[in-house]
Amino acid sequence: MSSSSATPREGRKAQAAATKPPMRDALVAAAFELFPERGYEQTTVDDIVALAGVGRRSFFRYFPSKEDVVFPDHERCLADMTAFLSAGDDTHEPVRRVCEAARLVLGMYAENPTFSVQRYRLTKKVPGLRAYELSVVWRYERALAHYLRGRFADRRDGTLQADVIAAAVVAAHNNALRSWLRSDGQDDASLTVDHALGYVQAAFGTPPAPAEQPEDVVVVVSRRGAPLWRVVQEIETTLGRD
Amino acid sequence: MSSSSATPREGRKAQAAATKPPMRDALVAAAFELFPERGYEQTTVDDIVALAGVGRRSFFRYFPSKEDVVFPDHERCLADMTAFLSAGDDTHEPVRRVCEAARLVLGMYAENPTFSVQRYRLTKKVPGLRAYELSVVWRYERALAHYLRGRFADRRDGTLQADVIAAAVVAAHNNALRSWLRSDGQDDASLTVDHALGYVQAAFGTPPAPAEQPEDVVVVVSRRGAPLWRVVQEIETTLGRD
Repeated sequence: MSSSSATPREGRKAQAAATKPPMRDALVAAAFELFPERGYEQTTVDDIVALAGVGRRSFFRYFPSKEDVVFPDHERCLADMTAFLSAGDDTHEPVRRVCEAARLVLGMYAENPTFSVQRYRLTKKVPGLRAYELSVVWRYERALAHYLRGRFADRRDGTLQADVIAAAVVAAHNNALRSWLRSDGQDDASLTVDHALGYVQAAFGTPPAPAEQPEDVVVVVSRRGAPLWRVVQEIETTLGRD
Repeated sequence: MSSSSATPREGRKAQAAATKPPMRDALVAAAFELFPERGYEQTTVDDIVALAGVGRRSFFRYFPSKEDVVFPDHERCLADMTAFLSAGDDTHEPVRRVCEAARLVLGMYAENPTFSVQRYRLTKKVPGLRAYELSVVWRYERALAHYLRGRFADRRDGTLQADVIAAAVVAAHNNALRSWLRSDGQDDASLTVDHALGYVQAAFGTPPAPAEQPEDVVVVVSRRGAPLWRVVQEIETTLGRD
């Protein structure tokens, strides 16, 4: 584990590192030293534990399978996301809230660009890892949809809207993530994801309630052929409504 | 293979059956006779070929793995979807086009409700099949996104928009599909999916071009506090613009 090799420890905040078992980090570091050298399929769990200098049972204490060592932070991130969504209350605009939750995932990747880019290249080459990643993405999407279903419980099409918006948020996030990974982690991850999520918020987000926005707007839609007096009448009625 | 057991042959149009190898159908029918009896995991390929009365090599000629026999029609449906999208031209509104493409998938399920419901129950119980299904759904989503990326090639955020809309269409479709499957195939599948896709079209679809809609509308957005004369002036300017 020389400082030049990319490990998940790199760039990790001191506080987070202190709460993390060093053996777990050592296993991830060993795995990512071996995968590029030997190939993912050719690297065995025995190879990984030998390099990390730990026993085989230690590996399976932290990772149910070899695939799990490739994505060591998703369980924590899923837990963080669930906690973040549970901590919200009714004052949070729901679509904005799930966008903020999605930003936590990008934050996890951006925490360690070198490791994230290395894993991205590995995942593209190994179909089994791609399948694993799809199941992880699915779990994030379900966490967002679950939150939105709760928030939309009184809407007629609440579950439909929740599922569609959750999928749109995940797709926007992943578009931004891939774009950032393809820049080798050089782009500003935060700007990229904000821009992508902004598209979803524009499509589905609701503006703040009138009470919070004293200068609210009036929208009048009129057929081009309508006489002007009818349009003015309509505006007067609307402006004078409350 | 009594007529009372649910098989993919059931409800299939005579024309389609004529172009389909009967041995393939027999293997699917045998598999779905055994899965509910013995459980998916406990049923071997040998059990399936024995009941279908064919050799083991015949199975693998049609299906790369046991999982594939559970989803025998997805490859055909993916090919149909790709062909449908390729056949489109620039006069097709892109979001409407991908919604129509998604309807092909629901059509495949609705072709044989008994089989689809039986498979739905099986898939829910077997994690491996759930993972397989996610990879199939991903391929549908990529086919839709690929089409939209082509159509949006000259947009600044074309790939972002394509990815988000494709994901939204798939999520809406799947919400409708699950709702129909939970009704044991009793609901009107077509109405359910039209309603769900309508939500996506409302969020992302572009209305027909002005030339096709002589009675176009004028939208005026004004702050509630604006004096009426300013609003009227704005409307007059807009109405008289061309």
